[in-house]
Amino acid sequence: MLNGEKKISRPLRWGMVGGGRLSQVGYKHRSGALRDNTAFQLVAGAFDIDPDRGRDFGVNIGVDANRCYRNYQTMFQEETRRPDGIEVVSIATPNGTHYAICKAALEAGLHVICEKPLFFTTREGLEIKALAEEKEKIVGVTYGYSGNQMLLQMRAMIEQGKIGEIRVVELQYTHGFNATDKADKISDAQKWRVDPKMAGPSFVLGDLSTHTYYMSQLIMPHMKIKRLLCDRQSFVGSRAPLEDNAYVLIHYENGAVGRLWTSSINAGCMDGQRIRIVGSKASLEWWDSQPSELKYEVQGEPAQTWIRGMPYLDDQCIADERLGALHSEGLTDAWANIYLKFAVAIDAKKHGDEETLSRLIYPDINAGIEGIRWIENCVRSAENGSIWVNYEKTYEISEQ
Amino acid sequence: MLNGEKKISRPLRWGMVGGGRLSQVGYKHRSGALRDNTAFQLVAGAFDIDPDRGRDFGVNIGVDANRCYRNYQTMFQEETRRPDGIEVVSIATPNGTHYAICKAALEAGLHVICEKPLFFTTREGLEIKALAEEKEKIVGVTYGYSGNQMLLQMRAMIEQGKIGEIRVVELQYTHGFNATDKADKISDAQKWRVDPKMAGPSFVLGDLSTHTYYMSQLIMPHMKIKRLLCDRQSFVGSRAPLEDNAYVLIHYENGAVGRLWTSSINAGCMDGQRIRIVGSKASLEWWDSQPSELKYEVQGEPAQTWIRGMPYLDDQCIADERLGALHSEGLTDAWANIYLKFAVAIDAKKHGDEETLSRLIYPDINAGIEGIRWIENCVRSAENGSIWVNYEKTYEISEQ
Amino acid sequence: MLNGEKKISRPLRWGMVGGGRLSQVGYKHRSGALRDNTAFQLVAGAFDIDPDRGRDFGVNIGVDANRCYRNYQTMFQEETRRPDGIEVVSIATPNGTHYAICKAALEAGLHVICEKPLFFTTREGLEIKALAEEKEKIVGVTYGYSGNQMLLQMRAMIEQGKIGEIRVVELQYTHGFNATDKADKISDAQKWRVDPKMAGPSFVLGDLSTHTYYMSQLIMPHMKIKRLLCDRQSFVGSRAPLEDNAYVLIHYENGAVGRLWTSSINAGCMDGQRIRIVGSKASLEWWDSQPSELKYEVQGEPAQTWIRGMPYLDDQCIADERLGALHSEGLTDAWANIYLKFAVAIDAKKHGDEETLSRLIYPDINAGIEGIRWIENCVRSAENGSIWVNYEKTYEISEQ
Amino acid sequence: MLNGEKKISRPLRWGMVGGGRLSQVGYKHRSGALRDNTAFQLVAGAFDIDPDRGRDFGVNIGVDANRCYRNYQTMFQEETRRPDGIEVVSIATPNGTHYAICKAALEAGLHVICEKPLFFTTREGLEIKALAEEKEKIVGVTYGYSGNQMLLQMRAMIEQGKIGEIRVVELQYTHGFNATDKADKISDAQKWRVDPKMAGPSFVLGDLSTHTYYMSQLIMPHMKIKRLLCDRQSFVGSRAPLEDNAYVLIHYENGAVGRLWTSSINAGCMDGQRIRIVGSKASLEWWDSQPSELKYEVQGEPAQTWIRGMPYLDDQCIADERLGALHSEGLTDAWANIYLKFAVAIDAKKHGDEETLSRLIYPDINAGIEGIRWIENCVRSAENGSIWVNYEKTYEISEQ
Repeated sequence: MLNGEKKISRPLRWGMVGGGRLSQVGYKHRSGALRDNTAFQLVAGAFDIDPDRGRDFGVNIGVDANRCYRNYQTMFQEETRRPDGIEVVSIATPNGTHYAICKAALEAGLHVICEKPLFFTTREGLEIKALAEEKEKIVGVTYGYSGNQMLLQMRAMIEQGKIGEIRVVELQYTHGFNATDKADKISDAQKWRVDPKMAGPSFVLGDLSTHTYYMSQLIMPHMKIKRLLCDRQSFVGSRAPLEDNAYVLIHYENGAVGRLWTSSINAGCMDGQRIRIVGSKASLEWWDSQPSELKYEVQGEPAQTWIRGMPYLDDQCIADERLGALHSEGLTDAWANIYLKFAVAIDAKKHGDEETLSRLIYPDINAGIEGIRWIENCVRSAENGSIWVNYEKTYEISEQ
Repeated sequence: MLNGEKKISRPLRWGMVGGGRLSQVGYKHRSGALRDNTAFQLVAGAFDIDPDRGRDFGVNIGVDANRCYRNYQTMFQEETRRPDGIEVVSIATPNGTHYAICKAALEAGLHVICEKPLFFTTREGLEIKALAEEKEKIVGVTYGYSGNQMLLQMRAMIEQGKIGEIRVVELQYTHGFNATDKADKISDAQKWRVDPKMAGPSFVLGDLSTHTYYMSQLIMPHMKIKRLLCDRQSFVGSRAPLEDNAYVLIHYENGAVGRLWTSSINAGCMDGQRIRIVGSKASLEWWDSQPSELKYEVQGEPAQTWIRGMPYLDDQCIADERLGALHSEGLTDAWANIYLKFAVAIDAKKHGDEETLSRLIYPDINAGIEGIRWIENCVRSAENGSIWVNYEKTYEISEQ
Repeated sequence: MLNGEKKISRPLRWGMVGGGRLSQVGYKHRSGALRDNTAFQLVAGAFDIDPDRGRDFGVNIGVDANRCYRNYQTMFQEETRRPDGIEVVSIATPNGTHYAICKAALEAGLHVICEKPLFFTTREGLEIKALAEEKEKIVGVTYGYSGNQMLLQMRAMIEQGKIGEIRVVELQYTHGFNATDKADKISDAQKWRVDPKMAGPSFVLGDLSTHTYYMSQLIMPHMKIKRLLCDRQSFVGSRAPLEDNAYVLIHYENGAVGRLWTSSINAGCMDGQRIRIVGSKASLEWWDSQPSELKYEVQGEPAQTWIRGMPYLDDQCIADERLGALHSEGLTDAWANIYLKFAVAIDAKKHGDEETLSRLIYPDINAGIEGIRWIENCVRSAENGSIWVNYEKTYEISEQ
Repeated sequence: MLNGEKKISRPLRWGMVGGGRLSQVGYKHRSGALRDNTAFQLVAGAFDIDPDRGRDFGVNIGVDANRCYRNYQTMFQEETRRPDGIEVVSIATPNGTHYAICKAALEAGLHVICEKPLFFTTREGLEIKALAEEKEKIVGVTYGYSGNQMLLQMRAMIEQGKIGEIRVVELQYTHGFNATDKADKISDAQKWRVDPKMAGPSFVLGDLSTHTYYMSQLIMPHMKIKRLLCDRQSFVGSRAPLEDNAYVLIHYENGAVGRLWTSSINAGCMDGQRIRIVGSKASLEWWDSQPSELKYEVQGEPAQTWIRGMPYLDDQCIADERLGALHSEGLTDAWANIYLKFAVAIDAKKHGDEETLSRLIYPDINAGIEGIRWIENCVRSAENGSIWVNYEKTYEISEQ
């Protein structure tokens, strides 16, 4: 169990790009990173495209006014000059800016933590990966939900053979907040999400399903997609070509099949993500509206509910526990788990501790690239008439 | 509300083919038909392929030993000679026998109530439909679950515009009782289900999904399928070519999309059917593991649960209520509703009351044919590589 | 599993007092008794205080007009003269009439099945018990919910030590349909329930809690009440002195404690009964809004849900199964189970088969008397200032 | 909505007594207080009765080794000498030490935040209240769960008349972790809880039910207890006279009735707290195992579920929202809400801003005293034979 005691020698000096006053996700980054003040310290930021608002905000959350910058370029320039400059930066800006900021950060010698979907193309992803390797820096991706330790429980149970061989994978991340186009018109955060220039080649596939897809890989690291078929729609027409609803069918290499549904027009749905893994003996099911519960259903036996915080859980799951059973944890705790692992990864990287890095399970650059790959393959299928396509490693290259 | 008082002038004289001692579904037929003794009276039967066991069983449920026949042919022959002979027969035998028995029954001048899937081909369905019209007889199909009155509530709410325009249709009928091949080897009822000669061109698509598909049509009579894609698997290999798991993607003519999942290898799943209809304003969701509850989720408002038996429900729903709120109804009540409608239809047919017939909502011959059509289209897609196929009215003919 | 085959040599000739067109519970009696037509045949009735309406109703459910009587006295007189007269009668009339009708029925040589609460006083109960013994007749009491076989599962698990020693018993039967006095004014069925002359010394204690109390005894036959305290209220003042809400605290002889809450003003509550038995190792919980599920919670282990119809259940539970897992059963099935046991008991009594009688678990005259005893003790506590009172076997006598 | 921006001019300098490495609750204090680093800064501590372990721990969570003190006396002495000394201290030690530490802290001129139950007697509570007033200091009590904003939603809905007049109050805080005496023997945190010298006159009444009782007052501030009856047990005998299970019956001054069940032997129960408030028109129900959901059940209408983070909620509820709908909040968020209000209260007190103080809803010294009063009255009833007792303002005085 975690209680806030340090996992690395000292907190990392941390800055943010974006995530200011109007950002909902920015607060999740801070809540995760600063949970215990033993992993990160927020010392600088370029929080807003409106520099004055950004400075005011930064000061209000305790950042020195002099280190509230007008843009990320200035921040990287100034901070790298300081002996106490930031070591790591989080990027919580619209998708279309991730690549440039990420590249600049790495070139400035910073570790990077970036929002999903990471970039627009796997080619960009591979380029940044090469740059990170060259610079010996970590790139983490904030698949925030994936920090829920019950997912590690699922992973452990599958690895232990508790469900048998995997046959069917059901993935869902849907909500209904964009059932009408109202949000597109009012909210800045929603406006750019349906603009291909800022959002990239997808809306909900990138914005929502990359989380769930990553979580499926976290749970079942051995499961590789062989081919898929994606059927996507823009029920609010103004969003076309970007989809507000998509269905994906999946064939895995081991013969298993899967489905994913992602939507922002699933009116009234408040469950967010649902994951069900069906094996030859039993199934596991987790919903993020009840994040402390894991259904374990062995065919022919009473259904079981495994509950967060209990001693019968796997060591890997308990290691990320903070509050103990009966005490509800939420998304903030999941983000704190992710951010703590980013800190440990960065610390290990700094010390060349490759063993720690090799054992650490967290959403790294590869997970970020895989998310882009997922989108690319889905979009390619959808744009070709919702047909089956082989799951290509690098879409652009393979297309040539 | 129903309380058992007669809806037709006198109970119909009723016989059964199949449904004997070893049949699980036979008891559902009897429980439904004989609920109040005012719609049907069981007076004859050819209950079993083992005539002695069939006679013993018949006597044990109160049928005169002389009217427990060795096979359906004898029953039809003998009963038609009697002045008090049966007027209607229910067929609860393996799929592969439906067509012949149904035809013989109609030719013997009987009304028919038959298990699903009705026959193997729509061609057979159209032929039997023509025969029934010629003979002026009713053919009902026992989509038993569809008698749950909460489905009529969904139908009414959709018709009243309470969810807006339909966008997404989620259908599911899965269980895990065939996760291994054990059942195929032990249970006679399961053995024939995976034998194409007796089961027809599908296993779970026919055995399970025809129920859910009919229910979707009951709820949304205006929704027509334009094209679909079916991906099916035989996770227990000995079942091939018949599937124990299938995914279907659907495009409706109005632009809505849908999915259906049917499976008998969804290990540990005990929910049976789940139906979710997403509209532009709200969604409706019903699970048959909680058959008295209907979720009505208006986007942006508190979620609602509408509960069976309550006065706020639609008249059509309340009309089929038997016990009142707080008092759980189950599948027996649903079958009783269906069978009562069969009786009313037969009675109306006898009296040439076409007005009653035109208003009556029940699973008739057309619903049976539509079920076969659904299977044919699914199988056609699956066999051609799980591709999109236009939804054809009559598969065989369209294939020529 | 039950499938409708006969359990006794021939169906019993059965009549009803009350339970006519306006009665909600009458239909439950008929649905239970006539489920399979192998236990009872309805051949006579005095269905209504309005004889014409009663006759019309009787004919409508298939009873010979000549055997639809103007009152129970006439029915008993006429039927006893017939060679094919009724052998058993069900009484579904207001509480205040049970004693007289029951007495008359026994004196006419009939077996009796009577609604709860059986009579107003245990003294009446003991008198009728003596009369039934003298006449060698069965008196059954329609605690209808108690026919749910999952209660037998609870009984078996407790007997097998699966929860350890019982410590805490939580009982609840509440609804909100009488939150206002509207029902008292409109519905005849509700009017008499708040009139002490017809209802007896209690409203919800008798009308609701006797069910749950009986079920608790069915589940835990070894648990005896040592003392109790009852606090009752009439939130709708016109109901005083009869209560529309009551709390009971219980001390059992083994040191366990318990609570019961019964109410008809629990606004919006649609769960009906809830039973939780806490043992030293584990708990069992059942709600009648989800009658197919039994929660089994072992301290320190994953929570379990045991589901109706599954092979892992106890033999006693499976013996009363009708539809099989995945197929919802409801209150009608529970009533059918109770009525079938009444038939078996009557048949055994007729044949002097005391061994069958001694093994049969069903709500008999003793269960009926115990229900009255429960009410008497609760009312005595409440009327004396909601104080602790020793649980007296016969209130009136012990008071002298 | 909250996003971490400062609510007071600068963070308060904060110290802790107790809450060290072995303390589960200490981490909750820190997670709540330090959520955003804009309300509190942890600068000192006497974290442990083992001073070395305490210092090591303090350093590990970022406290200067020189300000990790061997005991609270030294901390108060040293810190008051520093110009940058602590302004406020949190006390997370066994109950028996609260009074002395609290008194010392106030005398040292510190604001105080203290665990519940606050002290052993209301007399102590009144004395400390007088001292706090004299010193012009805030005393806050960490009823941590009460920070869940859905409780404010309940408060608002009740105030707005949405459930009518309150009739029945159902309160529960139970778990099963002490079903055996194992925990008493192994865990230090549990050992003292069953030792009257450290725990005071109760175990679960103080440890658990004071939370729920406070929450009931938060939700229904106008409801005053007139009399109560408490029946308590020690199912694990070694805990006597302290109870591991207790039932309380309540009569409110307005005629409403209530019950509370608190237990640590409710084997397998993982729901923690449940609160149901029944009004004349509707009921509200909240469970802390599903802290984002509020059931609103209007009699005669579909049941509603109001969900955290949605715009339809009351302003007071939304004001404490952090993550937004679909994003689960947990106990950490509730503690953060409470601690933020402590900070605002302290800041207002410092500035003599009595208007802010009068509007602020948080668990203050009066709430702490009321918790003791609750225990005293319950214990008095239980010790006198589980009888009804008038709810006395100050037990000890009234007894003279």
